[in-house]
Amino acid sequence: MPRYKLTLEYAGTGLVGWQRQPTGNSVQEILETAFERFVGPVFVQGAGRTDAGVHASGQAAHVDLDREIAPHEIMGALNFHVRPHAVSVLAVEAVDDTFHARLSATRRSYLYRVMNRRAPPALDRDRVWHVAAALDTPAMAEAARHLLGHHDFTTFRARFCQARSPLKTLDRLDVTREGDEVRIVAEARSFLYHQVRNMVGTLRLVGAGQWRPGDVAAALAARDRAVGGPTAPPEGLCLTAVSYAGSEERARRDPVGDGADGEAEEGVE
Amino acid sequence: MPRYKLTLEYAGTGLVGWQRQPTGNSVQEILETAFERFVGPVFVQGAGRTDAGVHASGQAAHVDLDREIAPHEIMGALNFHVRPHAVSVLAVEAVDDTFHARLSATRRSYLYRVMNRRAPPALDRDRVWHVAAALDTPAMAEAARHLLGHHDFTTFRARFCQARSPLKTLDRLDVTREGDEVRIVAEARSFLYHQVRNMVGTLRLVGAGQWRPGDVAAALAARDRAVGGPTAPPEGLCLTAVSYAGSEERARRDPVGDGADGEAEEGVE
Repeated sequence: MPRYKLTLEYAGTGLVGWQRQPTGNSVQEILETAFERFVGPVFVQGAGRTDAGVHASGQAAHVDLDREIAPHEIMGALNFHVRPHAVSVLAVEAVDDTFHARLSATRRSYLYRVMNRRAPPALDRDRVWHVAAALDTPAMAEAARHLLGHHDFTTFRARFCQARSPLKTLDRLDVTREGDEVRIVAEARSFLYHQVRNMVGTLRLVGAGQWRPGDVAAALAARDRAVGGPTAPPEGLCLTAVSYAGSEERARRDPVGDGADGEAEEGVE
Repeated sequence: MPRYKLTLEYAGTGLVGWQRQPTGNSVQEILETAFERFVGPVFVQGAGRTDAGVHASGQAAHVDLDREIAPHEIMGALNFHVRPHAVSVLAVEAVDDTFHARLSATRRSYLYRVMNRRAPPALDRDRVWHVAAALDTPAMAEAARHLLGHHDFTTFRARFCQARSPLKTLDRLDVTREGDEVRIVAEARSFLYHQVRNMVGTLRLVGAGQWRPGDVAAALAARDRAVGGPTAPPEGLCLTAVSYAGSEERARRDPVGDGADGEAEEGVE
């Protein structure tokens, strides 16, 4: 069966998240319903699940169709049928059937936006975390550097995370300020459930002066969720990109890479 | 009576615009209702009216209160009482009673965002104009330069514009591209009704290759709305700043400046 890779943008506001659930609209269900209207029932495999309220500007997925259809026709039909939902198909590519959106992914990139000013956000109210108290961005950046590399991230792992291992390799965790906005960019092959939001919630404690940067290293070493900071809210988070090694056709069904990350069953936020 | 300047951010989506109207929620009514809840009835004077769907990240207004109240208290109370509307008070300053939000303004700055890609916008669907066909940004920038300076802007003036004169001085009209987004920045002491959106709708014709850049100069010279391009939709437009000469306390109740612009009864989009 011909396989197609989808690149997706969506606003998570008002959705139950990526995964199909009986309680409301999910991105997966919206896409599968759109496919059903022009080719019949399909299963859409995402690169990772995103939680309710979490956005994406570069989510990836794949789907197998009964017959070959030109990618631009798939894209046009999907964008027509997903309406009126805030989901958009940015690109469609034919890929080898060894390509797997979740298992082949080599990197996931997230952006977390904090609106750090006294006034609440009006224009970006569903897209940022509003923190009124002044945040010390350099201190947050220093704390973030303690989390880079290969670690047991149990301290930042949601209790109901289903990953087999808490070992992950964090490749990037940058904290920068642009005017009133503090932007946190996180990149890894894969993440534990709520890992980005738990790291952000902890960095905020550093920014507010409640923790010193070194306290984050100590919390990481404790491997105990109870000593980590609170979970930052979903609306500030956006999955900006999912990367694949070399060409997308180069399959990675048998994951390789750095130890437990190879399981790659996550990318969940 | 003590006078206060307000700096405001709002999402125009779902509102009838700045000005109070019986048909729905306006920014003015939302603010006046918020004031009423903590100081009693007031009139909020905006720097200019924005249409339904048009946003602001730096609208200005002033209000006279019966008694002096600390600016931070006004700001906190307003931001509490405007909820749940997507309106936020960014700053409050005590000003001299010769300051007038509309008449003292010396510059209005607008940003118009065009999402120029095949896929419809999902994250910014209420914040951009979606134009699927590729736009030639350098040609649009060249065309825009023909509009700079002091002109009779009748070609870009809405038929129901109430300004006494069609003469305006356009100080800036920049067209740049950032990835899929074409950004048009317009600055003038004041604008005619729909002037920015009519200029943007005309520049789009140039970007699409239907008009040459020089055709915009010819259309301007014709002083005829019938030869101008269509009005771009409101959702791409945002009032980003209203500037005042020197300190805000320096009043301009008797407008000065470049001829008819001095009327300054506009700033309407």
